[in-house]
Amino acid sequence: MNDESVRLGHGSGGLLSARLIRQVVLKYFESPILARLEDAALLPGHGKEVAFTTDSYVVDPIFFPGGDIGKLAVCGTINDLAMKGARARYMSFAMIIEEGLLLRDLERIIASAARTARAAGVSVVCGDTKVVDRGKADKIFITTSGVGIVRRALGKEKIRAGDRIMISGTVGDHGVAVMNDRLKLGLRLNVKSDVAPLHDLAMKVIGSGRSTHFMRDPTRGGVVSVLNEAIEGTGHGIVIEEKSIPVKRQVRGASEMLGLDPLYMANEGKLVAFVARKDATRVLKAMRSHPLGRHAAIIGEVVNEPAGVWMRTAIGGTHPLLRMEAEGLPRIC
Amino acid sequence: MNDESVRLGHGSGGLLSARLIRQVVLKYFESPILARLEDAALLPGHGKEVAFTTDSYVVDPIFFPGGDIGKLAVCGTINDLAMKGARARYMSFAMIIEEGLLLRDLERIIASAARTARAAGVSVVCGDTKVVDRGKADKIFITTSGVGIVRRALGKEKIRAGDRIMISGTVGDHGVAVMNDRLKLGLRLNVKSDVAPLHDLAMKVIGSGRSTHFMRDPTRGGVVSVLNEAIEGTGHGIVIEEKSIPVKRQVRGASEMLGLDPLYMANEGKLVAFVARKDATRVLKAMRSHPLGRHAAIIGEVVNEPAGVWMRTAIGGTHPLLRMEAEGLPRIC
Repeated sequence: MNDESVRLGHGSGGLLSARLIRQVVLKYFESPILARLEDAALLPGHGKEVAFTTDSYVVDPIFFPGGDIGKLAVCGTINDLAMKGARARYMSFAMIIEEGLLLRDLERIIASAARTARAAGVSVVCGDTKVVDRGKADKIFITTSGVGIVRRALGKEKIRAGDRIMISGTVGDHGVAVMNDRLKLGLRLNVKSDVAPLHDLAMKVIGSGRSTHFMRDPTRGGVVSVLNEAIEGTGHGIVIEEKSIPVKRQVRGASEMLGLDPLYMANEGKLVAFVARKDATRVLKAMRSHPLGRHAAIIGEVVNEPAGVWMRTAIGGTHPLLRMEAEGLPRIC
Repeated sequence: MNDESVRLGHGSGGLLSARLIRQVVLKYFESPILARLEDAALLPGHGKEVAFTTDSYVVDPIFFPGGDIGKLAVCGTINDLAMKGARARYMSFAMIIEEGLLLRDLERIIASAARTARAAGVSVVCGDTKVVDRGKADKIFITTSGVGIVRRALGKEKIRAGDRIMISGTVGDHGVAVMNDRLKLGLRLNVKSDVAPLHDLAMKVIGSGRSTHFMRDPTRGGVVSVLNEAIEGTGHGIVIEEKSIPVKRQVRGASEMLGLDPLYMANEGKLVAFVARKDATRVLKAMRSHPLGRHAAIIGEVVNEPAGVWMRTAIGGTHPLLRMEAEGLPRIC
């Protein structure tokens, strides 16, 4: 501790983030629910089980191909609830605005957030607006929290060897779209952020496969983070097949050029599901019948050993997919 | 709209804030619950009624006499629920951190937040940590949301002429303590922020007076904001007595010197209650028996006319307590 300070990587969703949360946050907030570190918390004692989640959004730029920070903030909370098998019903919307933000940009963001919430059947019921001096924030930060009703409780403790792992579509779109826009790379890419509300797709997955064990949306830290977190502490391993992972050609190209890996990049409209083998084909079919799951694929399976996450490459090798200190880019969501 | 931009006053809790919320936020989020603009939203359809609230905290400095941003964020959410007659049970805790914040400061903030939550019986069940580059935020911003169970539903529609208006203690302490610290005024004040969780005091008020109609904690915008909002759209008026308002001598002195009015200044551990005349004495006694209500006082009453909020001054005049464009200081909470 002493003179150490917070670094950008502490917010990246990688190992640095995980360490900060374990060593500082969980040390004081002694909540067994929080300690599960899941996308949403299940609140006991409310009859129907209620799920509760929160996330702050600091994406830069605030408008990017395919979306904006308002849509992102609403989808993020809908998706965190959906991954716990819950349908979002109520949402809060808190803004920290830098003095000088154009009112028309604020209006555009709020309109986008409201449109997204309405389309998903979520009511925004409370909010807050703070303004800080110029140079003390960056245009706008938004924090949303959501309350939803659990349809079916999922959790990583349900994961079993033999489970098939599927992803609902191409990986890395959001990361590449935001980065290309932010860094003014000048790549003439036709890649948009995939930001989308996943409640409907998630309910379809649960509805078609009773043995859906676990779901998570691979945002910060990407697919590699999700896979590692899924089996952490379980003793299980995961093997995925490189050639089965859907990646858009342009995303692949941009990633190669920049030395980045789409498996570590943020997605905002994709889900990873762990489903028992017997239901896997049916769930895959259900995913593909949904507009947000057209490119769904089974990418691997859970194994008893070896422990850890492994990828069989297209040319036949097998190498570990390790979490890194800082995964992905800062301020991607 | 066109080229107008967000100003600091848009976040002050005054008329500018109110206008921004009505003209931009409510225009798009068409929720009747949100449109009530209360401290917390009541969520229908959960058996026991559930209240839900959110607030972002951007106070500067993050450590101030009597508290810090962590304690403030937890108390703020507990208090918003308490003002709706609800007891906080679950809370979210989302941080936006500026790169470079000392880890030991972060730890001190989290420890303080956790201690406050634990003492109030609230579980922090979900959270988020984002980090932005140096110069893109100011040390740390925290957003908390809370879920609570309603003991008795209160609301401004229950306010009646004849209701006594009481405040649980001295006004302006938080505002003066933070300002003195921030501006390095060098005033050798012995004034601390009053930041405290009000759940217990609020339950005591409700428990002792079945005709408690409305409660609100006078934070941003102070007592004047609360009184004006309470009767807005009801046609009622309010008359308060200047000499009955509890103000610490040092707060009065600092305010006079700086040309500020304690009635417009933020409090973080006080509540204003509207109680039917017949229960007023009993509720006042109950307040005073609580450590956080020792200096409680009846400061005025609701009248049929004149409409608006009026103060009878110590020397016998009567003048209106108008809301201002920008009330209080920026970044006071």
